Amino acid sequence: MYRTHTCGELRKSDAGKEITLAGWVQTIRKFGAITFIDLRDRYGITQLLFGEELNDQLSASPLGREFVLQVKGTVSERSNKNPNIPTGDIEVKIGSFKVLNKSVTPPFTIQDDTDGGDDLRMKFRYLDLRRNEVKKNIELRYSVNRAARNYLHEKNFMDIETPFLIKSTPEGARDFVVPSRMNAGQFYALPQSPQTFKQLLMVSGYDRYYQVVKCFRDEDLRADRQPEFTQIDCEMSFVEQDDILNMFEGMIKHIFQEVKGIEIKEKVQRMTWEDAMWNYGNDKPDIRFEMKIANLKSAFLKDGKIQATGELINNANFNVFDKAETVVAIAVPGIAEYSRKQTDELTEWVKRPQIGMQGLVYIKCAADGTYKSSVDKFYDSSRLEAIAKFAHARPGDMIFILAGAEERTRKAISELRLEMGQRLGFRKKDEFKLLWVLDFPLFEYSPDDNRWVARHHPFTAPKPDHIEIMINNNPVIENAAEYLKHPYSNIKANAYDMVLNGNEIGGGSIRIFQRDLQEKMFAALGMSKEESLHKFGFLLGAFEYGAPPHGGIAYGFDRLCAILGGSESIRDFIAFPKNNSGRDVMLDAPSTIDETQLEELSIQLRTQDLKF
Amino acid sequence: MYRTHTCGELRKSDAGKEITLAGWVQTIRKFGAITFIDLRDRYGITQLLFGEELNDQLSASPLGREFVLQVKGTVSERSNKNPNIPTGDIEVKIGSFKVLNKSVTPPFTIQDDTDGGDDLRMKFRYLDLRRNEVKKNIELRYSVNRAARNYLHEKNFMDIETPFLIKSTPEGARDFVVPSRMNAGQFYALPQSPQTFKQLLMVSGYDRYYQVVKCFRDEDLRADRQPEFTQIDCEMSFVEQDDILNMFEGMIKHIFQEVKGIEIKEKVQRMTWEDAMWNYGNDKPDIRFEMKIANLKSAFLKDGKIQATGELINNANFNVFDKAETVVAIAVPGIAEYSRKQTDELTEWVKRPQIGMQGLVYIKCAADGTYKSSVDKFYDSSRLEAIAKFAHARPGDMIFILAGAEERTRKAISELRLEMGQRLGFRKKDEFKLLWVLDFPLFEYSPDDNRWVARHHPFTAPKPDHIEIMINNNPVIENAAEYLKHPYSNIKANAYDMVLNGNEIGGGSIRIFQRDLQEKMFAALGMSKEESLHKFGFLLGAFEYGAPPHGGIAYGFDRLCAILGGSESIRDFIAFPKNNSGRDVMLDAPSTIDETQLEELSIQLRTQDLKF
Repeated sequence: MYRTHTCGELRKSDAGKEITLAGWVQTIRKFGAITFIDLRDRYGITQLLFGEELNDQLSASPLGREFVLQVKGTVSERSNKNPNIPTGDIEVKIGSFKVLNKSVTPPFTIQDDTDGGDDLRMKFRYLDLRRNEVKKNIELRYSVNRAARNYLHEKNFMDIETPFLIKSTPEGARDFVVPSRMNAGQFYALPQSPQTFKQLLMVSGYDRYYQVVKCFRDEDLRADRQPEFTQIDCEMSFVEQDDILNMFEGMIKHIFQEVKGIEIKEKVQRMTWEDAMWNYGNDKPDIRFEMKIANLKSAFLKDGKIQATGELINNANFNVFDKAETVVAIAVPGIAEYSRKQTDELTEWVKRPQIGMQGLVYIKCAADGTYKSSVDKFYDSSRLEAIAKFAHARPGDMIFILAGAEERTRKAISELRLEMGQRLGFRKKDEFKLLWVLDFPLFEYSPDDNRWVARHHPFTAPKPDHIEIMINNNPVIENAAEYLKHPYSNIKANAYDMVLNGNEIGGGSIRIFQRDLQEKMFAALGMSKEESLHKFGFLLGAFEYGAPPHGGIAYGFDRLCAILGGSESIRDFIAFPKNNSGRDVMLDAPSTIDETQLEELSIQLRTQDLKF
Repeated sequence: MYRTHTCGELRKSDAGKEITLAGWVQTIRKFGAITFIDLRDRYGITQLLFGEELNDQLSASPLGREFVLQVKGTVSERSNKNPNIPTGDIEVKIGSFKVLNKSVTPPFTIQDDTDGGDDLRMKFRYLDLRRNEVKKNIELRYSVNRAARNYLHEKNFMDIETPFLIKSTPEGARDFVVPSRMNAGQFYALPQSPQTFKQLLMVSGYDRYYQVVKCFRDEDLRADRQPEFTQIDCEMSFVEQDDILNMFEGMIKHIFQEVKGIEIKEKVQRMTWEDAMWNYGNDKPDIRFEMKIANLKSAFLKDGKIQATGELINNANFNVFDKAETVVAIAVPGIAEYSRKQTDELTEWVKRPQIGMQGLVYIKCAADGTYKSSVDKFYDSSRLEAIAKFAHARPGDMIFILAGAEERTRKAISELRLEMGQRLGFRKKDEFKLLWVLDFPLFEYSPDDNRWVARHHPFTAPKPDHIEIMINNNPVIENAAEYLKHPYSNIKANAYDMVLNGNEIGGGSIRIFQRDLQEKMFAALGMSKEESLHKFGFLLGAFEYGAPPHGGIAYGFDRLCAILGGSESIRDFIAFPKNNSGRDVMLDAPSTIDETQLEELSIQLRTQDLKF
């Protein structure tokens, strides 16, 4: 061993000890004949004192930042203590030292506030990982991993590894594929998730399964998506939805306790998907703050019915509201005094292409109980007051109203709500609000194909009392314009998402475990019998041999860590991430491969020349 | 929850309780009006008693093997107890039951002694996994996983995930590659091991890393090899070889304690590679028994010198020994009385192509102190006695002697030793002998290319006092016939293997951490400067920024589990293994993919038609 102690462990009580440390030179400071060096390792920083007698040696082999040193010396109490670091009470008077390795000058400084840009930090990721900021994230990731495993182990879950070289069954996202050399012309796929395997394990009787496992999706990368990502993947047998919610509520609370020292005593709030859409405009509401949507008019079905008919706003000759499918409002607390400049700026904000609204209507609810709005021409004070009351606005609040097509407008009001929450400091990094969103629709309508697609995935079971609707109705949509009237649009899934601070951190469902229902589902999704047998014959087969009722959940591990770490970006919680083009710029991967490799794999590149 | 208890937990003290169980029908036995059913789940088997009053219901929905039932009933003490199962003291008198799912007749019986052949069991792997034999293996695998993680966690190791989509740097085995859609014409590779990443993590200062991680090798599959396999992968900084040996000796002892309840107190034996080759004929000796090789004559260099010159056997006009490069013997205890038929059979055994010897010489060391051999014509009693003494034979033993070319003969005597150990019952399944093999050669000679190849991998450091030999000598081999005289053939590596019962379960090395030495290594392996920069530029770069001394080890997790489970085959310790052609016969993978998928990936199949 090159050291007797780490750079993070020496204390006042160690004074007088002869010790050996090894680590990296963080800083060098000369005071006359004396040199101070801060030596850094994974565990901390220790101040070293090089006396005059070592100056010859220091001149002969000059040290620099990031040099790797081994030093022997005596611990002594410092006169000038540093209360900011745990080793600040001591320093080590060096007797001898050895340079274990040199370093050229790093391309950026290894400090919390580095001068390195994103590209440079990615290329030299091994140096970026030295920075305390990044190290803290990687350590947090490991704590989350460990806490999840410990909890699941205690609950009798077993980590069972599932294969990575599987069969390509594209459905939703694209598969990454792997050409097989031994089976020429054939390909493996990398798993998008171990979904079917964990279901097979349930059929096999392993009633509590988990894995912290890499998954792969060949998608066009949006910001903060990675082609490979990690899931905490779990499945249970002989359970109903409530059993799963309770079990994993327990897991997340355990993680908070272990990783953040936060004890969450209250039960995690549960909300139906319809309530989430109705009150927050999206299916993963940030409930750190209220500011719920007031539905003045809507085409959206709540509990199967259109519920906001527009009484508060109609008959005012205000064309914008009259023509709009949807009119929604939020009451933003305490900003009634916003200037014209500020409301103009927000109007521009909602008109940006990402939001896509035509304009922003506001009602200022003054502290004195009067109202002033951008639509005073159309609505008198009493009507404004009625709207304000409906929107739960209080004196001093400002109401923002958006109008337009249902989906876009609901999305826009949701974005505006989040933006205002952000601006007003309601979305605190260190406040954590968990939420279960339940009762998702089982199907979504795909206008491109005029058919149903699975909202979650094709293995999700309908709510028990909706199974009949599914079995007794033909999935074919005769009239595309009226798809909302098709019985399938009302079928709810036994599915659930866990939401943390407005981010979906986990999702799952109770699964179909009967062959006939699974076949019905594949057919509903437009899959022919042959196709479903080709792709999922093994699963349909397995369901014939005594499949138990089961369900599960998968957490997005990268995202979960990022949120726990107070960050919106997952990249800094992954040791070696890829950039937005799916490249590892450190490795320079992907890259070309040899012609002989291609030949062995019985494939060739598709070039212009080869097109005939 | 569908149950209040599992099928493994009810005891006499539960008598009188109203409980609910869920599980699979293992057996159905009718006694007159009464029906007994054994209900099985992951945790055990519980006997259910269906009284006469349930007969109508049982007739209406007849039960069968592997049906999934939910039953409610009362626990009662059995009169006719079954001492073979933990729940054997009780049975459950059923009040009501529900069939949760039916099962068609399984293609083989779900029992310890199944009637299913290998192919059938692989195709219906989800049923095979129900068998107790296989379940025990999967459970053992999880215990090993858990024990390793717990030990490493206690020792401050961190699980840090490394990427799966990396760069292809074929060196040794073939890479599996993954075409990139977003980077047309380029490919990722799947990692053969996280080797370079864990070294980068050491450069980054994460001084204790581990991962239980999937690795991929596109090799022609020998029996019991899998294209994807799992490693316990570890790396440490600021360590010397001894630190690593001690740390991982600790890990394996912890695993034995936790998983097998076996406390290994003694230090794990250490043996140099040369001693292993000299005394056992291979680099992973099974030391559960002695039967060491007596080297009568050898071309093999021990400690850099040829040490067996043949004095005991020469000058006897026995052409076979005179012409042979190598003559080696083992004394097999207690079989001096073997019949002519038995020695003939063993002679045939060594003549099989897999062993490839010309014949087998034997010397019977009779209990009365006399000798009788198949070479009595050439060697008189006193010479036979001298050989027997040298081979440490005792009265009653039989000496077997093999002669021929060095490498083949040493391999053959090693095989014969293991075969005799097996036949004589010296290789007990429940006896575990660990061994460190040390000081491997750094290089191996490749006659095909007349150059050096890395015996371990190109990142392994030479022994500290051999670094000079490497730096000061030109790696080029002028005279192929005399490669053994090249200084490089004497360079030993700072490498180590952990051997368990004659199987390599782990291997590792102290790594090179200096750029110049790493460059020298790449050059010694015949890599041009350009090639080494193209493939490993990121690692060479990293070594310039203060790389610490480091080293590590990787355990073959599948193999380790198999040996701990007393099996020679890894397949039954993997939930979803592939067959010897790399196929998953359950999924039917790999398989063809759509033309559109190929097109998106900018590749096409290479067919006869396309060759021009």
